[in-house]
Amino acid sequence: MNYKEIIDQNREAYLEELFEVLSQKSISAQDDGIRECAELVADKLKDAGMKHVELMETETHPVVYGEYHVSDDVPTILIYGHYDVQPPDPIEAWDSPPFEPTVRDGRIYARGAGDNKGQMMAQVLAIRTYLEAKGTLPVNVKFLIEGEEEIGSANLVDFVDAHREKLKADLVYASDGPMLPDNHPYVLLGVRGILYVELEVEEAAFDNHSGNKGNIVPNPAWKLIDLLQTMRDADGNVLIDGFYDDVLPPTDEEMALLEKLPFDLEEVKRNVGHDGISMSKADYYRKLCFEPTFNIAGFTSGYGGEGSKTIIPKDAKVKIDIRLVMNQDPDRIFELLKTHVKKHTPDVTVKQFGKMWPSRTSADMPFIEPIRQAVEKSFGKEAFIQPSLGGSLPDAIWTKVLGVPSVLVPYANVDEANHSPNENIMVENFYNGIETTCHVLDVIKNSDM
Amino acid sequence: MNYKEIIDQNREAYLEELFEVLSQKSISAQDDGIRECAELVADKLKDAGMKHVELMETETHPVVYGEYHVSDDVPTILIYGHYDVQPPDPIEAWDSPPFEPTVRDGRIYARGAGDNKGQMMAQVLAIRTYLEAKGTLPVNVKFLIEGEEEIGSANLVDFVDAHREKLKADLVYASDGPMLPDNHPYVLLGVRGILYVELEVEEAAFDNHSGNKGNIVPNPAWKLIDLLQTMRDADGNVLIDGFYDDVLPPTDEEMALLEKLPFDLEEVKRNVGHDGISMSKADYYRKLCFEPTFNIAGFTSGYGGEGSKTIIPKDAKVKIDIRLVMNQDPDRIFELLKTHVKKHTPDVTVKQFGKMWPSRTSADMPFIEPIRQAVEKSFGKEAFIQPSLGGSLPDAIWTKVLGVPSVLVPYANVDEANHSPNENIMVENFYNGIETTCHVLDVIKNSDM
Repeated sequence: MNYKEIIDQNREAYLEELFEVLSQKSISAQDDGIRECAELVADKLKDAGMKHVELMETETHPVVYGEYHVSDDVPTILIYGHYDVQPPDPIEAWDSPPFEPTVRDGRIYARGAGDNKGQMMAQVLAIRTYLEAKGTLPVNVKFLIEGEEEIGSANLVDFVDAHREKLKADLVYASDGPMLPDNHPYVLLGVRGILYVELEVEEAAFDNHSGNKGNIVPNPAWKLIDLLQTMRDADGNVLIDGFYDDVLPPTDEEMALLEKLPFDLEEVKRNVGHDGISMSKADYYRKLCFEPTFNIAGFTSGYGGEGSKTIIPKDAKVKIDIRLVMNQDPDRIFELLKTHVKKHTPDVTVKQFGKMWPSRTSADMPFIEPIRQAVEKSFGKEAFIQPSLGGSLPDAIWTKVLGVPSVLVPYANVDEANHSPNENIMVENFYNGIETTCHVLDVIKNSDM
Repeated sequence: MNYKEIIDQNREAYLEELFEVLSQKSISAQDDGIRECAELVADKLKDAGMKHVELMETETHPVVYGEYHVSDDVPTILIYGHYDVQPPDPIEAWDSPPFEPTVRDGRIYARGAGDNKGQMMAQVLAIRTYLEAKGTLPVNVKFLIEGEEEIGSANLVDFVDAHREKLKADLVYASDGPMLPDNHPYVLLGVRGILYVELEVEEAAFDNHSGNKGNIVPNPAWKLIDLLQTMRDADGNVLIDGFYDDVLPPTDEEMALLEKLPFDLEEVKRNVGHDGISMSKADYYRKLCFEPTFNIAGFTSGYGGEGSKTIIPKDAKVKIDIRLVMNQDPDRIFELLKTHVKKHTPDVTVKQFGKMWPSRTSADMPFIEPIRQAVEKSFGKEAFIQPSLGGSLPDAIWTKVLGVPSVLVPYANVDEANHSPNENIMVENFYNGIETTCHVLDVIKNSDM
């Protein structure tokens, strides 16, 4: 029997297994049901046929680790997922209880249905399906299912770093997040990084009267604005020395991938809530995937209420989030920015509020197009390859810390309502996800890793 | 008997008259006791010897008007004051009830003691004193005592405009506000004007994710910053076409006056709460009296809380207060600013939140130095002439609407705590104010108006 036939035979049983996991609370932010869920997921991995399964402790919530070693001569795939979920609040907004999974109109409703239990269990049940079909796996498979993704994966870098030998693989494969609009599946090869900083200038000890002290005491908002203008020109180019030094331009192959992506300008306008947007598909994706940003996320100084208040503000602060592309290093960019500030306006303080490295897996890896075909076939809908997300995810844990290519293939429908009431996954997406994972194992076997 | 001797003889009686007025509530913001106080002040003007006294209605609170006509051949002085007061809150912070005037340690404590009943009654009782000394007044005297100064003198321009014939005078004389540091008296010849505007740019209909939409949707904070940089250079010079066209440079005489003003850099630093201030006396007063400002009173866009939020803000706004010097016209400056914005960033909206014309009475008017000497003699302390306040007052009502020179001589001690709990005026300041006003009448008589 092929994978699809086996899945069809097991529809009820597979759904029951998923429902068991969905019924088990695992709210990482509230440490509610975490260990129970980790143990349950470990059992599911064993039941699926994984040979070695264990809970591995971290500073907080355990990682569920599973391994099926076939041979040293075949490639190894490391499958990543998470078993923790967001709190279900506001509970009263749910049409059925968040931890009592319910099928309505072809969708499974439950907290974690889409993010990430439904997708993670599709990965797990693919092992059972594959073993039923072929008796053994085609490649070495490792599972790393963590329990604190929803609270920022705080321990994941250290965990991966501490177990790099054990986690060694040729590819990291993850399924999380929603598909593209119209539920087109896609293969994601990377993310932009981020560096989030706050610049603050404190002038006087208090707000001063803008008349009686006007021209006497310096204005911190003007000081910040003058500084900001040295950092970026009116066309949006960043003027910090060395900012673009490490930027890797897209390859011809990556640009060609962009051209294949779906694009509807009217939909973009609705998406961003702005009628004035006008750009070509190539520009849109190039700006989103391959160009850094230098965004003001907040500027605050003085009086922001209704009407007037005549003050010289005592301080001003600006929050800047900088999305980084390959090979920009947030640590280096932070140093360049500090150097720039020190040179131009030394009394401005610079704080860092977070960073992530950009990550990108080369589009000419041999397994990418076969994976795209596998997901397209399993979902019966045109599938795309996106070289990078505009946003940031800790994908560099795999590509930089572990040093392994990484691809992400979302199995959840675009309206999965993750983090919201009535979170759901389409029943067929769950089954199609199982089938996709089976095909991916074959792809890895056949690719020259 | 000279003025001082008469005042000495009447110390108790004068204080009693002031206490009567201080005991009468007159909170304009709450319309509490206003008409009762207006009638009481009218009685005080009559008691002092003013020949014609009337309440003149405005849209809201009545003006108390008084007149003493001597002859068409002598100059006319129009004395301005106000009988309304600020609300006394927080009442529990007062050491004695705000409407039960109390003398402690040489100070009269009551709401309105300094602002403005104590100073206004010194003007009124000067008439009684002068008449007791000389039997008649040396010049024609008019009183305009309004009842809504503390709520912005909303009806005063229209009132003055509607009664310009009746209010015709050669000089407007007012006593309000505190003296200079160390309780040095001074003669104030003008104020800076003000134009208060808000620039706002609205981009998207909502805040956008800075990663998934970064580089796609324009950032309104950057747009405002780019616009602001076209309006002012890093040295603080305003770049709006025509902004400086009408600026009247100070005369040599005015610059010489600045050099005579008291100046203590350490005190300036404490006053503005900023250790880094460093400037000469001439620079300090020139920047304050004779140079316009272009101050950011508030800049608000996006997230201003703790930590990070990764958004492209949907809008940004900046509040700018522009202090104007002679002969800048707030209406013209507003037009220039709108033209500038329209040229550079037409999608920025411009709102006006208030304006006042600058006002200055020429320092070479013949009565100014004699008034300085009069106040110096009455207060027994070196008195100064300041060509302009850094702040803004509706002084142009006199110099521009009525077309009359105007001087302001504050009688209240520097720590009068106006608008605050435990508002007070030093008892001796009240008496010295009476004496000063008497001398001023003589000065006007002797000046070539």
